[in-house]
Amino acid sequence: MSLAEFETIIEVPFYDLDPMNVVWHGNYVKYTEIARCALLEKIGYSYDEMRVDGIMYPVAKMEMKFIKSAVFGQKLCVKTIVEELEPGLNIKYIIKDAGTGETLFKAKTMQICVEFSTGKSIYEAPEKLKKGLECLKNS
Amino acid sequence: MSLAEFETIIEVPFYDLDPMNVVWHGNYVKYTEIARCALLEKIGYSYDEMRVDGIMYPVAKMEMKFIKSAVFGQKLCVKTIVEELEPGLNIKYIIKDAGTGETLFKAKTMQICVEFSTGKSIYEAPEKLKKGLECLKNS
Amino acid sequence: MSLAEFETIIEVPFYDLDPMNVVWHGNYVKYTEIARCALLEKIGYSYDEMRVDGIMYPVAKMEMKFIKSAVFGQKLCVKTIVEELEPGLNIKYIIKDAGTGETLFKAKTMQICVEFSTGKSIYEAPEKLKKGLECLKNS
Amino acid sequence: MSLAEFETIIEVPFYDLDPMNVVWHGNYVKYTEIARCALLEKIGYSYDEMRVDGIMYPVAKMEMKFIKSAVFGQKLCVKTIVEELEPGLNIKYIIKDAGTGETLFKAKTMQICVEFSTGKSIYEAPEKLKKGLECLKNS
Repeated sequence: MSLAEFETIIEVPFYDLDPMNVVWHGNYVKYTEIARCALLEKIGYSYDEMRVDGIMYPVAKMEMKFIKSAVFGQKLCVKTIVEELEPGLNIKYIIKDAGTGETLFKAKTMQICVEFSTGKSIYEAPEKLKKGLECLKNS
Repeated sequence: MSLAEFETIIEVPFYDLDPMNVVWHGNYVKYTEIARCALLEKIGYSYDEMRVDGIMYPVAKMEMKFIKSAVFGQKLCVKTIVEELEPGLNIKYIIKDAGTGETLFKAKTMQICVEFSTGKSIYEAPEKLKKGLECLKNS
Repeated sequence: MSLAEFETIIEVPFYDLDPMNVVWHGNYVKYTEIARCALLEKIGYSYDEMRVDGIMYPVAKMEMKFIKSAVFGQKLCVKTIVEELEPGLNIKYIIKDAGTGETLFKAKTMQICVEFSTGKSIYEAPEKLKKGLECLKNS
Repeated sequence: MSLAEFETIIEVPFYDLDPMNVVWHGNYVKYTEIARCALLEKIGYSYDEMRVDGIMYPVAKMEMKFIKSAVFGQKLCVKTIVEELEPGLNIKYIIKDAGTGETLFKAKTMQICVEFSTGKSIYEAPEKLKKGLECLKNS
């Protein structure tokens, strides 16, 4: 059971294409980050606010599956599914064509909360993150 | 007097930032391309349709002025102003904060129409481009 | 037992850094591609030559582990280890500091050979790839 | 008369290509930065050292001319020519094929020295930069 879910729409820009006229595989990392940041923005706890609180959330692991290539101008729906908050923040991503619903890409990231001043990992999620996700789930 | 004008909203993604915590200067080229493609999409003559017609429009010259740095999550309004259609397509770009209207960046591009099959430059603008811009201007 | 191994040196450019003053995690995908292309170049069967032979090798899966952040100007040694050729091309990557040997990053990619004209997957590796890797192994 | 000149070799990576199978125009900004950083590294005054001295050198203006498209694996020679040091740092860039010497691209950047603590522009070049460039010129 997921802790929270969120959807973001992205339109494929021309500069993300490769010589096969499809999105270069490395650019999907950007799409997952846009969607993750939109989720954090939605719950009111963005990277900028984490910084003020003296923490950051670097990505420690990432897995990607490229199912079907996205093309220029295609509207993509990136669904983010928060699967775990502790000890790390685990998010799943599913990218579908925003119109047809066809699945193009899946990914998972694992992020670790790190204290700026000490560089130490923190295995308990910040209250603001927990509460924000709860609110989103119940909304 | 401009041939047509158009505005696009962009939100600064995290991955465009540099160690100064502002947008890395090279990323503004992407913002101008997004805005130019949105303009072409609006008038119904995108890069994909040009390709079908056997032409492309590579950028031959570009000038950029970096006035104030954009930051994470900032909503930018990119105004494209088509200044000339022949012999080349000259577009001016002004990026402002979408809220305050403060100017952050200005640029110009000059693009040349090239025939795919021969690689030759074409100095007369395609009818579809001319008509599309006229429609936009009169709308 | 690996089918072949190869090492490439990369120097971290300024534009790959993020606001934490370290390499943004998505940029490691580029480093793996540089190393993979250098390996293919070494064995004489680059993406350009595959294209002439009517095939391509899109990445179907990728896993990444971010162990320690790379910094500006750091010289990285990217080791590519070919683990499997059929049915897909599986490559492992280990990025170390070129001086100290400290491990910073690990990854795996799985690529599928696809015929351009039909879009069909090919599960037998092309002879040129097999022979090239054998030569490299025995060199 | 130039204040100093320097040359850097770059090999075009696959991920810099666009659907025309040539380098996407915005990627040349990266090549100019690599060359500029190599020049500063050579004279012993890199961005990291400037930061320690409390200054930075953001790009305020940039002009680019795209003469001929660079392709995958092409070895490029980027020549940097320091034209002015005060009030701003003006550098000219010429990219040629490293083998044939054919010119592909030209650019100019204008950078302004800025004090970190105050955000104020400094119109006199730092001594380390002046001396470094003199040494390079006389070497």
